[in-house]
Amino acid sequence: MTRKPVLLLAFLLQFAVAAQAQQEPLDQQMVERIKQEGLQNSKVMETAFYLTDVNGSRLSGSSGLKRANEWTKNKLEAWGLKNARVEEWGEFGKGWEYEKSYIAMTAPYYQQIIATPKAWTPGTNGLVKAQAVLVNVEKEEDLAKYKGQLQGKIVLTPLSREAKTTFEADARRHSEEDLTKMAAPAEQNANGGQNRRSEEWRAMMALRAKVAEMVKAEGAVAILNSSGRGGMHGTHFTSNGAPYAKDAKPGLPELEMGLEDYGRIVRLLQAGQKVELEMETKTRFLEDDLKGYNVIAEIPGTDRKLKNEIVMVGAHIDSWHGSTGATDNAAGVAVMMEAMRILQELGVKPKRTIRIGLWGSEEQGLHGSRGYVKKNLGDPATMKLTKDHEKFSAYYNLDNGTGRIRGIYAQGNEAAAPIFEAWLAPFHDMDAKTVTLRNTGGTDHLSFDALGLPGFQFIQDPIDYGTRTHHTNQDSYDRLQADDLKQASVIVATFVYHTAMRDKKMPRKELPKAKPAAL
Amino acid sequence: MTRKPVLLLAFLLQFAVAAQAQQEPLDQQMVERIKQEGLQNSKVMETAFYLTDVNGSRLSGSSGLKRANEWTKNKLEAWGLKNARVEEWGEFGKGWEYEKSYIAMTAPYYQQIIATPKAWTPGTNGLVKAQAVLVNVEKEEDLAKYKGQLQGKIVLTPLSREAKTTFEADARRHSEEDLTKMAAPAEQNANGGQNRRSEEWRAMMALRAKVAEMVKAEGAVAILNSSGRGGMHGTHFTSNGAPYAKDAKPGLPELEMGLEDYGRIVRLLQAGQKVELEMETKTRFLEDDLKGYNVIAEIPGTDRKLKNEIVMVGAHIDSWHGSTGATDNAAGVAVMMEAMRILQELGVKPKRTIRIGLWGSEEQGLHGSRGYVKKNLGDPATMKLTKDHEKFSAYYNLDNGTGRIRGIYAQGNEAAAPIFEAWLAPFHDMDAKTVTLRNTGGTDHLSFDALGLPGFQFIQDPIDYGTRTHHTNQDSYDRLQADDLKQASVIVATFVYHTAMRDKKMPRKELPKAKPAAL
Repeated sequence: MTRKPVLLLAFLLQFAVAAQAQQEPLDQQMVERIKQEGLQNSKVMETAFYLTDVNGSRLSGSSGLKRANEWTKNKLEAWGLKNARVEEWGEFGKGWEYEKSYIAMTAPYYQQIIATPKAWTPGTNGLVKAQAVLVNVEKEEDLAKYKGQLQGKIVLTPLSREAKTTFEADARRHSEEDLTKMAAPAEQNANGGQNRRSEEWRAMMALRAKVAEMVKAEGAVAILNSSGRGGMHGTHFTSNGAPYAKDAKPGLPELEMGLEDYGRIVRLLQAGQKVELEMETKTRFLEDDLKGYNVIAEIPGTDRKLKNEIVMVGAHIDSWHGSTGATDNAAGVAVMMEAMRILQELGVKPKRTIRIGLWGSEEQGLHGSRGYVKKNLGDPATMKLTKDHEKFSAYYNLDNGTGRIRGIYAQGNEAAAPIFEAWLAPFHDMDAKTVTLRNTGGTDHLSFDALGLPGFQFIQDPIDYGTRTHHTNQDSYDRLQADDLKQASVIVATFVYHTAMRDKKMPRKELPKAKPAAL
Repeated sequence: MTRKPVLLLAFLLQFAVAAQAQQEPLDQQMVERIKQEGLQNSKVMETAFYLTDVNGSRLSGSSGLKRANEWTKNKLEAWGLKNARVEEWGEFGKGWEYEKSYIAMTAPYYQQIIATPKAWTPGTNGLVKAQAVLVNVEKEEDLAKYKGQLQGKIVLTPLSREAKTTFEADARRHSEEDLTKMAAPAEQNANGGQNRRSEEWRAMMALRAKVAEMVKAEGAVAILNSSGRGGMHGTHFTSNGAPYAKDAKPGLPELEMGLEDYGRIVRLLQAGQKVELEMETKTRFLEDDLKGYNVIAEIPGTDRKLKNEIVMVGAHIDSWHGSTGATDNAAGVAVMMEAMRILQELGVKPKRTIRIGLWGSEEQGLHGSRGYVKKNLGDPATMKLTKDHEKFSAYYNLDNGTGRIRGIYAQGNEAAAPIFEAWLAPFHDMDAKTVTLRNTGGTDHLSFDALGLPGFQFIQDPIDYGTRTHHTNQDSYDRLQADDLKQASVIVATFVYHTAMRDKKMPRKELPKAKPAAL
């Protein structure tokens, strides 16, 4: 008898473990079918080719984005998805695109320059030849020095970074150590330093605005700058140089450049050499349609009780304008479309409706997904929720470049974590196994998370996202890793399928409080 | 007694070793003074700044090279060197430079392109808009397909490489293992493979020439190409697209591009998309002066018997035209000039005359150094030698980029190797210690070696020479490693000093046979 209670306990423990494991069912047969279709018959690179090479960049409000919206809608429809539509999310502002970009140094000698017009800046008045001037304003009093000095000039400011040769590779994958760290709870940082930095940052931005105002008032013809982000060898970050609001005042023509070309001009000016530049940029504002759009399509649910419940995948379809936005985020769009194609191709009959959302204007503040959420699910400012809020299961996002999926951020949702563990089990041999409770930010799952809805983003290998491609003029098709995108498509398809088939909706975190200020 | 002979032998051996070590004197005090001046008061980066940023590219026959010749001559003179002069080496051919370079894709959408005109190609007739056409000629019969198809078109050929993301760093240093390998005798390769490859290469070049002829005859407006060398992210190799001989016929306008921009156009054409480009290039031939020049200056010898003997340092001053030729070879020029400056500044009184030669037109076939050698030392075709041949001690060259010196190629000169070992002894702690008997080629020491004269090139850390800078549009000032160039200047100065002071000239290899054909 003495051993009986021990045996019983052992039995109960075994049962509990088994129950835990069984608790989250895994459709191994469907996983295999998805792998087969996604790895053997993949169309993910073909989709990415059309989104990048054929379509071009997809800046908010540009004709490139309009083309991509139409193309993706038509493609999803052609694959057999239902209710495919380009759907307005609200007012964005002015569209913008550029039609010519040329700049070179013409004295002390001719040297071509790699540069991109900043978004929403005007073009030059034809081909302009002008002297370069270095404006160095460290405090407001310095502004006076440039009175009467800038008429007809092209203005640069001192460099904050050097283009130092690096002995590290641009591209890398997460190591086991990286992933173990990521799986551990995030360290809590005291916030004092950050507040101080924010204050400094605000002061710097205020001074910069005054410099820009002065430079324009003094009659300069253009501004050049280099953030130093985006890498070396002429690779440069591209961003906006002026607001896109419909009533925003136009600034000066402004170009973003790589550190090498920029640094050469600054060094020459600092050494007292005269530098002459010639430049010609043509840009175009599109003001006929100020609205913003998302692309939506779905595989309808088939269960009588659950078909009105929604599982979503999504990725933003807009990009910056210096290249074709391959890793930010044609990669995410191509993978999410491919996940839908795989499920459609396999003829799955999901209990819940599976919907894809390709978001507009993520780059300017998650506008597309926020607009969609506000229209359909509720307002995070008031926490006034729609009745579809109750019917929403989960949203899965992909927006960290071309790298394969290594796991998922459970975004503080403790009940979701073991479910994800179970769903990742078949992918350990494909490098995906990490579930972290940590939050990750900066992209569209936040729009859902803000309403207390399960919104998740996957962990991806960084490859060269942070060093070379994110927002740069080199974010082109060549940077896509085909095998990684195939792997990601397969994993996303299985996650969505399991979410659509499980008995219950995905567990939720506590409902957040109303946030009258914007997120 | 039995042990006496052994003791004697041991004594003799010890003596021999000591004699060997003592045989090559080392002026430790001078080494320290050179280190002090070269590391604490270095001007090597200032020299490099003027050669690159201030002067610009230095293509053979260009005004950039003329400026650099004048500037270096004046600088050497200002430092106190004697007999500084820009000295003709012979006839080069036409000079060439470009004054505008612009190209972009305008359909299916606007996308700017990073590209450089190939040297010695003509410019376009103003701004040209034209359709891109892919010409795929694998055998001569394929030429007929393009009859009547190319009028007014811009021609591309299929890509031989993809712009694959690499997980290795662009920049690296030699490991101990690399250096150990390098110090071992070179492996002898059977030459069959190479001969076969040469034949294939000749056949390919012949077919290419026919394609170029056909493309021009058919009335195409320009040719684009991408060798795929020089790296990624728009970085591209720059070379010549037409001969520079004074009577050479002009080809078509031709641009070199990075793999990404080129690959995008090729992929679009292969997918049946129409691609329209606009381009404008202005180039200029300089035919007033067909001669080529070297820059020469010296620190005269002071020993009555030895002052007519010559020790030389040198590096080529010409570059390609896509950037400012920083690592190829402003680096070498700046280091060699700095070595001279250090010795001059220290007021050394060398027994032999120390001369610097900054060679023109190395990039087109070591023309400057060959011309100098032929005029002053002898003709390798006939092996008719001048009487200065006898008075020549050694030549030291630097032309492998910005990396610090890790040792020296003794170029098969077995008697020179232990001398170099002795001279490197004080620099083991500065990473330089390897002497290899191996030959290295591709640069100006070969011009001296061809006459049986001791001509040496140093072993340098590769940094990003092979991956990013060598002949590319990104070979700019930023790629220079200041600490490496200082180290190299100091080592070169001590080598030259010791060569100028030793009792005998440097030992020579056997005199080569006459080589009626060019090397």
